[in-house]
Amino acid sequence: MNYCNQCGEAVSQQIPEGDNRLRYVCNTCATIHYENPRVITGCLPIHEDQVLLCKRAIEPRAGLWTLPAGFLENGETSADGALRETMEEANARVNIEGLYTLFSLPHISQVYMFFRATLQDLEFYAGEESLEVQLFNEDEIPWDNLAFPVITETLKHYFKDRTDNTFQTRYLDIVIERSKKQR
Amino acid sequence: MNYCNQCGEAVSQQIPEGDNRLRYVCNTCATIHYENPRVITGCLPIHEDQVLLCKRAIEPRAGLWTLPAGFLENGETSADGALRETMEEANARVNIEGLYTLFSLPHISQVYMFFRATLQDLEFYAGEESLEVQLFNEDEIPWDNLAFPVITETLKHYFKDRTDNTFQTRYLDIVIERSKKQR
Repeated sequence: MNYCNQCGEAVSQQIPEGDNRLRYVCNTCATIHYENPRVITGCLPIHEDQVLLCKRAIEPRAGLWTLPAGFLENGETSADGALRETMEEANARVNIEGLYTLFSLPHISQVYMFFRATLQDLEFYAGEESLEVQLFNEDEIPWDNLAFPVITETLKHYFKDRTDNTFQTRYLDIVIERSKKQR
Repeated sequence: MNYCNQCGEAVSQQIPEGDNRLRYVCNTCATIHYENPRVITGCLPIHEDQVLLCKRAIEPRAGLWTLPAGFLENGETSADGALRETMEEANARVNIEGLYTLFSLPHISQVYMFFRATLQDLEFYAGEESLEVQLFNEDEIPWDNLAFPVITETLKHYFKDRTDNTFQTRYLDIVIERSKKQR
């Protein structure tokens, strides 16, 4: 950040009075520009014994498999954002069953959440950001070709939980890609 | 938003190619300025049969009671943010037991989350943003003087769950203040 988006003059990094962090502050109009983590919301779409994955058409991790998810938009709920992304990436209509996983990824300042969801029908097809959309049984999951640790963790939890049909919401920190701490 | 924070020139609202929402886009350098919901993270601090509430010293809702919570910062986990806010507002040290409630408030583009937590000791005292910090039994909760619906909902869930000692994580949309939809 170089300039104030309110008045167009230069900003500099300062610790505002009463604060304890460096923020971008306008040198002219004194507006403080806070920067905060972004939320990514998505679904774990299920049909009978299978889960729906999307092969990414875009970077990062193009060509790898993911669950439909994307940035939460202003003015929408986390659940509605998950439904929207599932439609955009997989043209899939789902019913949300409940919040399933929530991850903090502090190294990239993201909060990631997935809702467990059931497919309403099998008329799904790849959206613009996907190369393919496909249902997988547990023994077909491309574990070595999943796009992100949050996808691997969510799928691992799901197949474990499915053995006793108890789907507990989980919170997990994913710190510097591979060191994880469950609470 | 009036100016580009990268180059300082004017922005205008446009729907970028491949997008379907109005964004602020720089008329000069073409930078797209996305705006996304912010995350508020906090604790439900518990000591035996009591919960800890803070009387707000600041607007909005100064003088009303709240749970310690605040904006998640870049580079921190949701749980660490909750611990930090609990220290800042109540000087209270807690152990986090698990994610407890998650709310979407689309009308103000916020995602609110609370962690269930147990107090490590009773040496808490009001921080700068609190007038008082106090432990309450269930029959002492100032239900008519709680600061936000997310506080009321979290406390209601807690006292209900406590009757059978089962604390399930809940997701709830709070739309236009009072119309709620549970998933």
